[in-house]
Amino acid sequence: MPIYKAPVDEFLFLLIDVFQIGRYDNLPGFADASPDVLAAVLREAGKLSEEVLQPLNRTGDIEGCTRHDDGSVTTPSGFKEAYRQYAEGGWMGISAPSEFGGQGLPGFLTVAVNELLCSANMSFGMYPGLTQGAIAAFVLHGSAEQKALYLPKMIEGRWTGTMNLTEPQCGTDLGLLRTKAVKRGDGSYGITGTKIFISAGEHDLAENIVHLVLARLEGAPAGIKGTTLFVVPKVLPNADGSLGARNAVTCGSIEHKMGIHGNATCVLNYDNATGFLIGEENRGINAMFTMMNEARLGVAVQGLALSEVAYQNAAVYARDRLQGRALGGAKFPDKPADPIVVHPDIRRMLMTMRAFNEAARALVVWTALQGDVAQRSGDDKERQAGEDHMGLMTPVLKAMLTDRGFDNAVLAQQVYGGHGYIAEHGIEQFVRDARIAMIYEGANGIQALDLVGRKLPKDGGRAMQAFFNEAQGFIKEHGEEAMKPYVTPLAAALGHLQQATLWLMQNAMTKPENAGAAAHDYLHLFGLAALGYMWCRMAAAAHRKTAAGEGDAARMNAKLVTARFYMERMLPETAAHLARIQAGAASMMDLPAEAF
Amino acid sequence: MPIYKAPVDEFLFLLIDVFQIGRYDNLPGFADASPDVLAAVLREAGKLSEEVLQPLNRTGDIEGCTRHDDGSVTTPSGFKEAYRQYAEGGWMGISAPSEFGGQGLPGFLTVAVNELLCSANMSFGMYPGLTQGAIAAFVLHGSAEQKALYLPKMIEGRWTGTMNLTEPQCGTDLGLLRTKAVKRGDGSYGITGTKIFISAGEHDLAENIVHLVLARLEGAPAGIKGTTLFVVPKVLPNADGSLGARNAVTCGSIEHKMGIHGNATCVLNYDNATGFLIGEENRGINAMFTMMNEARLGVAVQGLALSEVAYQNAAVYARDRLQGRALGGAKFPDKPADPIVVHPDIRRMLMTMRAFNEAARALVVWTALQGDVAQRSGDDKERQAGEDHMGLMTPVLKAMLTDRGFDNAVLAQQVYGGHGYIAEHGIEQFVRDARIAMIYEGANGIQALDLVGRKLPKDGGRAMQAFFNEAQGFIKEHGEEAMKPYVTPLAAALGHLQQATLWLMQNAMTKPENAGAAAHDYLHLFGLAALGYMWCRMAAAAHRKTAAGEGDAARMNAKLVTARFYMERMLPETAAHLARIQAGAASMMDLPAEAF
Repeated sequence: MPIYKAPVDEFLFLLIDVFQIGRYDNLPGFADASPDVLAAVLREAGKLSEEVLQPLNRTGDIEGCTRHDDGSVTTPSGFKEAYRQYAEGGWMGISAPSEFGGQGLPGFLTVAVNELLCSANMSFGMYPGLTQGAIAAFVLHGSAEQKALYLPKMIEGRWTGTMNLTEPQCGTDLGLLRTKAVKRGDGSYGITGTKIFISAGEHDLAENIVHLVLARLEGAPAGIKGTTLFVVPKVLPNADGSLGARNAVTCGSIEHKMGIHGNATCVLNYDNATGFLIGEENRGINAMFTMMNEARLGVAVQGLALSEVAYQNAAVYARDRLQGRALGGAKFPDKPADPIVVHPDIRRMLMTMRAFNEAARALVVWTALQGDVAQRSGDDKERQAGEDHMGLMTPVLKAMLTDRGFDNAVLAQQVYGGHGYIAEHGIEQFVRDARIAMIYEGANGIQALDLVGRKLPKDGGRAMQAFFNEAQGFIKEHGEEAMKPYVTPLAAALGHLQQATLWLMQNAMTKPENAGAAAHDYLHLFGLAALGYMWCRMAAAAHRKTAAGEGDAARMNAKLVTARFYMERMLPETAAHLARIQAGAASMMDLPAEAF
Repeated sequence: MPIYKAPVDEFLFLLIDVFQIGRYDNLPGFADASPDVLAAVLREAGKLSEEVLQPLNRTGDIEGCTRHDDGSVTTPSGFKEAYRQYAEGGWMGISAPSEFGGQGLPGFLTVAVNELLCSANMSFGMYPGLTQGAIAAFVLHGSAEQKALYLPKMIEGRWTGTMNLTEPQCGTDLGLLRTKAVKRGDGSYGITGTKIFISAGEHDLAENIVHLVLARLEGAPAGIKGTTLFVVPKVLPNADGSLGARNAVTCGSIEHKMGIHGNATCVLNYDNATGFLIGEENRGINAMFTMMNEARLGVAVQGLALSEVAYQNAAVYARDRLQGRALGGAKFPDKPADPIVVHPDIRRMLMTMRAFNEAARALVVWTALQGDVAQRSGDDKERQAGEDHMGLMTPVLKAMLTDRGFDNAVLAQQVYGGHGYIAEHGIEQFVRDARIAMIYEGANGIQALDLVGRKLPKDGGRAMQAFFNEAQGFIKEHGEEAMKPYVTPLAAALGHLQQATLWLMQNAMTKPENAGAAAHDYLHLFGLAALGYMWCRMAAAAHRKTAAGEGDAARMNAKLVTARFYMERMLPETAAHLARIQAGAASMMDLPAEAF
C-alpha cells in the first residue's frame, strides 16, 4: 500500500523563510495567519489526508462510482464518512468570506491544503475543489440573494458544486455549445440540453448539488459571446434554504475512465430544468473566465500533488529494495545486495522528481500569495501587479505542473520496476490519475496559446516585464560567490526566454502560426526559468538560515544540492526549447491535412 | 473503436529504396525474399492484424485473463481462434530453420510482422513473441534431441514458450535467484521455487507450454555465475512428441496490471518439477544473454508498434474533430468549425509521433538486417560487423523506442482531449499497454548501463567507431545542396555524441558513478543521432526516387517535410543531453540515502 506524509515543513520553509509571509500582514486575514496558525492548520489537514483520505485512495480506484437505475450515484465506500469529516472540520471555507460562514484566512492556505488532499486522494479532492470553484463564482458574480441562499450551505459543505461547460460537440470551442435557456414568466429560465464530462456531477456526499451551467438564450448572438451562466440546483431550494422539489436534471450515465475512478464523471441531461441567471445575459464566458485562474491553479496543484506522493513512495521503495551493487563497490556488504538508491539512474529519477516538486510548490505558493494580493490589497498598483502575475503564471502552472506531474508519476513507477506495473502497489494508479490533469480545465495546448496569444502581449507585455525585472533584480542583488552556481544558470535561462520573446514579437504578428507553433515550447521554457528563479530564492534562504545557525543543517544542505541538480540537469533544456521556437512553423505545418 | 492499417508501403520503402535489400541476396534465405514475396507476406500479415487481431484488442482489455481454481487460465474471448489462425498461417516460423518446419525467410521479416501484430493487439502478440524467443534458445543452445523434440511443435505453434527469470527478491539482479535444481539419477533435474511476472505463463491457446527456467544447482557458485538454464515443459512430452504426464508446475495466481490485460502474467510455482538442462551447468546467464538481443529488439518493436497505432488514431481524430478556427482564419468556413488538424499544437503532436515512427522503423529494419548478417553471412568480418551493430544498437532501440513509444501514446491521447481519457475510445489502453515495454526485458535504466558500461567500451569501442564511420561517410558523400538541411544537423548531433563519448572516456574510468549518471542521457543522445542518420538516408532515397520520377511524389515530399521537422524540432535535444552528461555525477549523488 502506498504511503503519504504531508510536507508541512516544506510549506513552512516557503512561507516563512522564502516568501517571508510577515510582509503581507497588511492584507485582510493575513494577521490571523501567524506561523503558528499556519503550522497548526497544515498539520491538521495533513492528519486528515494521511489518516482518513489516503487509505481510501486505492479502494476508491478499485470500487469506483456506481450509477443506479434511478440516476443516483454512489461514491466508493468510506468517501461519505470522509467527506463528513472534511465538512465538519470546516475545510471547505477556510479562505471563504467570514460573513457567509467562512474563516476568511488567506487564499494560499486553501491552495496548500488542497495539495495535501489531492496527494492523499485526488478523486476525493475533486469534490471540494469543484465546490470551492462554485463558491468563487457566487462571491464574484452572484446577486445578494444568491449569495445569501447558496454560500452558507456550500461553505458548510452541505451542498457541493459543479461546472457544466462541455457538450459532445464542444470542448475547447465553447462557441459551439447548444444547451438552450428559455426565459420564463417568473424570472427563472428553462434549461434544456446535454452536458458531458461533468466531474462530481452526481454523488451521495451532500444534500444538494449546485450546477453552474453555460447555456445559450433564445436569439443570443452566435458563438462564445452568446453564452450565459446559470445556476441549476439539483434540488430547488426554498427561500429559507430548506430543500424543495427535485429539479429536472438527471445523470444519464457515468464514464469509464483511465483513472480518477472515485470521482463520478457524468453525462447530465437537462430537461427544461429550472435555472437562475448568474451575472448578465450573454456574458457567461466572462463569468467563467474570472473563475478560471483559480480553477486552473487548482488543477496545477493536482499535478504537483501526484508528483509529490509518487516521489515519496519511490523514495521509500528505493531505500528498501535490495538489488545489485553500487558501481564503486558494495555499500552494504553485509546485505545480499545494496538498496537501489545507490544506483545513479535511480538517483537521476528521484532527484528529477524532487527538484521539480520543491520548486513547483514554491511557484504555487508565490502565485497564490499574488492571488491574495490581487483580491485583498487596498493598493491599486499592488492589486494590479498581483493580477498581472496570476494571469501570466496561471497557464504556465497549469500546463507545466500537470505535464511534469504526470512525467514524474511515470518516473516513480519506473523506480519500482515490474512491481510498478502491478496494481496492488498503487503506483500505476498515480499515473492514471495524474493523466487527466493535462487535459481538463483547458487542455495544455490551450494553456500555451493562452500564454503566448493573450497573457504575454496583454498591456504591452507588462506582466512578463515585471517577472524579468524581479528575477534580474534578484540576480543583481546576489552576486556573492556562494550564489553563483544558481544565479549564473538562471541568467542564461532568462537570456533564452528573452530571445524567445523577441522572436515571437518579430515573427508571430505577421504569421500567427508561428505563435501557435512556438506556444508549447515557450510555455515550458518560461516554466523552467520560473522554477529556476524559485530555486535561486530557496538557495538564498537556505544560505541565510545556515549562516544564522537556524534550521536543520542537513535539510538546508539538501536544498542546495537539489538546487544544483536543477541548474545542472533540468534548466539546460531551455536551449532546446529556444531552438525549436526559432525553427518556426514551416516544417510543422507544410503537410496537407490529408497526408495524416 | 480504434482503427489500424498496417504500414506495408512504409516497410517496402525502407527495404527496397532505403536499404536496398537486393544487396543482401548472397545471404541464405534472402534470395527467396524478393520484393514481391516481401509485399505479399506483409500484406497477408497486415490482413491478419487488421481483421482478426485488432478487433480483439479492446475486448481483451476489458475481459482480461481468468485463472480458475485448478490453476488453469482462460484467455479473452476470441484469442484462441485467432491464435489458431496465426499458427495455421505458419507465422510462428517464417524465419525459423526449414529443417524443423520453418520457412527460413530472413529474420527481419519476423521483426516486421511482429510490429503489425503488436500494433493490432500487443497482449496477443506477446504469446508468439515469447515462443519465438524460446525457439531461438533451442536453436542456439539445445541439444540435437531437444531440437528434434521441441522445435517442430513450437514452430507449428502447437506448443508455446516462456522465459522464467524473475523472483520476488530478484528482478534486475539475477544473482539473487533462489529457485533450486537438484540432479536426479535419470539425468533430469528437480526444479523447485517460485517465479513471478511470467508473461504467457499459463493459457488455453496451445497444447503445451515450454518454460525456460533459470535456476541454481546445489553447490553452485554464488551470484550470477551459479545459474543454469532448464527446460521445464508444462506437460512432459514422450520421446515421439506425444504428450505424457502433467509436470509439477502450476500457476499460483495472475497479476492485476495497469495494462496488457489479455496476456496472463503469472506466478509459477515449481514443486520438484521435472526439468532438463539446456547448454552447460552454471552457464545459464550466457545462454540467456545470447537470446537477449532478439528479445530486446522484440520489445523495442512493441514501443514502435503502439506509437504507430496511437498515431494513426490521433491522425484520424484530428482530421474529423471540428473545434475552433485556424489561427490565420477559417479553413472550412462552411463547417461549424475547422478540424483540429489545422491547429499548430495538434500538428506538433502528430508530427512528433510521425517523425519518430518512420525513423524508428528504419532503425529497426537496419538493425534486424544486421542481425541477419550476423547469423547468416559466410564472411567472418561481415558477421562480426553485424554482431557489433546488433550489440550496440539493441539497448538503444529497446530503451529509446519504448520510452518514446509510451510518450507518443500519451501525445495521441492528448490529441483526443477529454475523449482520450474515456475507455471506449481505446486510446488510453495504448498508454497503459505501452507502459510495460519500458520496464520488462531489462528496465530502460539497465539498457543505458549496458550501453555505456558494456557495449560502448567493448573491443576498444569498435562498434561505435563503425557507426561514426558510416554516418560520417554518408555525410561526406551527400554534400549536395538538397541534402544540406538534413546532413548539417546530423553532423552537429554526431559532434555532440563524440564530445559525450570523449567525456565518458576521460571521466568514467576513474569514477564509475559518472558513467551511471551519464547513461540515460548518453543512450538518448545516441538514439537521437541514429534516428537522425535514418532520416538522412530516407531523405536521400526520397530525393533519388523523386529525381527518377518513381514513386508517389506527395509521399516522397511528406518524407522530406517530416525529415526537416525531425532535424529542426527533435534533434536539437542532443545539446541538452550533452550538457547533462558533462555535469557529472556530483549533484545527483551528493545527498545521503536517508535524505530521500
